Amino acid sequence: MSLVIVGSVAYDGLQTPAGKVDRALGGAATYIALSSSYFVPSSIVAVVGDDFDQQDYDFLASRNIGLEGLQRVPGKTFFWAGVYSDDMNDRTTLTTELNVFADFDPQLPASYRSQPYLVLGNIQPALQRSVRAQMTAPRLAGGDTMNFWINDFRDELLDTLKGWDFLLINDSEARLLSGESNLKRAAQTIRALGPKILVIKRGEYGATLFHDGGFFSVPGYLLDSLKDPTGAGDCFAGGFIGYLASQGVSLDDAASAPAAELARAVVYGSVMGSFCCEAFSVDRFRTLTRDEIDARFAEFQKFTAF
Amino acid sequence: MSLVIVGSVAYDGLQTPAGKVDRALGGAATYIALSSSYFVPSSIVAVVGDDFDQQDYDFLASRNIGLEGLQRVPGKTFFWAGVYSDDMNDRTTLTTELNVFADFDPQLPASYRSQPYLVLGNIQPALQRSVRAQMTAPRLAGGDTMNFWINDFRDELLDTLKGWDFLLINDSEARLLSGESNLKRAAQTIRALGPKILVIKRGEYGATLFHDGGFFSVPGYLLDSLKDPTGAGDCFAGGFIGYLASQGVSLDDAASAPAAELARAVVYGSVMGSFCCEAFSVDRFRTLTRDEIDARFAEFQKFTAF
Repeated sequence: MSLVIVGSVAYDGLQTPAGKVDRALGGAATYIALSSSYFVPSSIVAVVGDDFDQQDYDFLASRNIGLEGLQRVPGKTFFWAGVYSDDMNDRTTLTTELNVFADFDPQLPASYRSQPYLVLGNIQPALQRSVRAQMTAPRLAGGDTMNFWINDFRDELLDTLKGWDFLLINDSEARLLSGESNLKRAAQTIRALGPKILVIKRGEYGATLFHDGGFFSVPGYLLDSLKDPTGAGDCFAGGFIGYLASQGVSLDDAASAPAAELARAVVYGSVMGSFCCEAFSVDRFRTLTRDEIDARFAEFQKFTAF
Repeated sequence: MSLVIVGSVAYDGLQTPAGKVDRALGGAATYIALSSSYFVPSSIVAVVGDDFDQQDYDFLASRNIGLEGLQRVPGKTFFWAGVYSDDMNDRTTLTTELNVFADFDPQLPASYRSQPYLVLGNIQPALQRSVRAQMTAPRLAGGDTMNFWINDFRDELLDTLKGWDFLLINDSEARLLSGESNLKRAAQTIRALGPKILVIKRGEYGATLFHDGGFFSVPGYLLDSLKDPTGAGDCFAGGFIGYLASQGVSLDDAASAPAAELARAVVYGSVMGSFCCEAFSVDRFRTLTRDEIDARFAEFQKFTAF
């Protein structure tokens, strides 16, 4: 089962209490694909400029990530720079240079359109909808959004969400989108907008899943050392949908209760998000093995069982 | 196995987004005892003024809470008033009138000194130490503290903690006490100060337990309706130590791995904290049954299993 990922491939300037890098590989599609590639064949649809480093291309290719849909056009690659607060729970954007990403109009290669799984990184809701419409009949399609789209592109976003099976957002976004402060009521409101599978991410505190069968919560992993939280939410998404894809899960399974698979997917998402934070940029994925992933999944079982 | 509880019995003025009460039963010892009384015989050592309502006394007595150590002296009962933020994660104190609590010098009735379990609510660390010294040989002794004592009475607090088996604090207090922002390292530092069993409470996000056998995390309960979080941490403490007392757990059991009992105690603490928030003041305990407690414990098992 293979997975199509649409979103940004970028360079990031990162400053956290643990250090600083001026320009390192980043972007939602990058993180999602690096994460999901441990579970299923994954392909990226994105755009980069002619400054995109061959070694970064080679790194993605080395993870068996499909790059047929990675356009390279004249100009500079999307660049974002930010600085994190002391507890790394907040960050301030220093620079956002959209560059070639400003004209991104994702077109799926023909062979991608019939793929069974689609995840849409945090981009303009109308673009997300256009991509969804290019897919013939995915088993599961969904993605991410953010405060900016919820506030300023609400109507477009609501149209987009109608076509999604799953949505992953953080708790402040869930409250903003739903207008409800109570998380259970917020989830009920959001699921009525389209996505039957809703994951509310709560940063270091874990994540909660809402679906037809009820809800499931997992606490956060206690990291020995937090270096850089950039991309953790995207790696969560990659682990979540990557695991579901590896199990061939579809919403049609709902009657046969995929609750256990959904719960495990949330834990795999948490596992991948936790690894992401252990090094700057995408560096943890240069050495991470599937054995380490499964060992951490087992750790989650151990520290949550009672 | 019975439990001795030392702390405040008070009146609170409470304002939350869900409503307002001008004067209602509160205080750490009150909440701890109401919670623990579902698990083991519990007794309070505290002081109230001559304005303390007979109906409040009768309510505590009706829960089979031992009141031999509840002194009634001339003057007014401790009064605290506060207002909660919209998300109820913060609160602002409007009034603190110590009244008769200012001269509180807890003396345990003779029959209490040989009891097996002691929990110390959030009071002056030197008083906590004096109470601990009055006990002959409790199986488990410990309690709670707060930012004020950590900042302004650090030396006294460190002396006190040397004699404790368990400590329950929230995450910001753990970071303040240890000087460590990483929660695992904070826990390691704090456990070296005395309490081998450490519970770090994380409000709506759950709680994490650290002990010789490792750590355990439980996510928070998703409330249908949050009315008033006052006393939730104390009710957590009551459920935690109440369950351990009901099982006869002692630190000597550590070799025989009480990890499962400790984990269940954290869940019972979470259960009791969640009920506390469902009504103003102590009102939820006027109707709460042991069956409801066990049903919610089963709910925790269901929404955390994978």
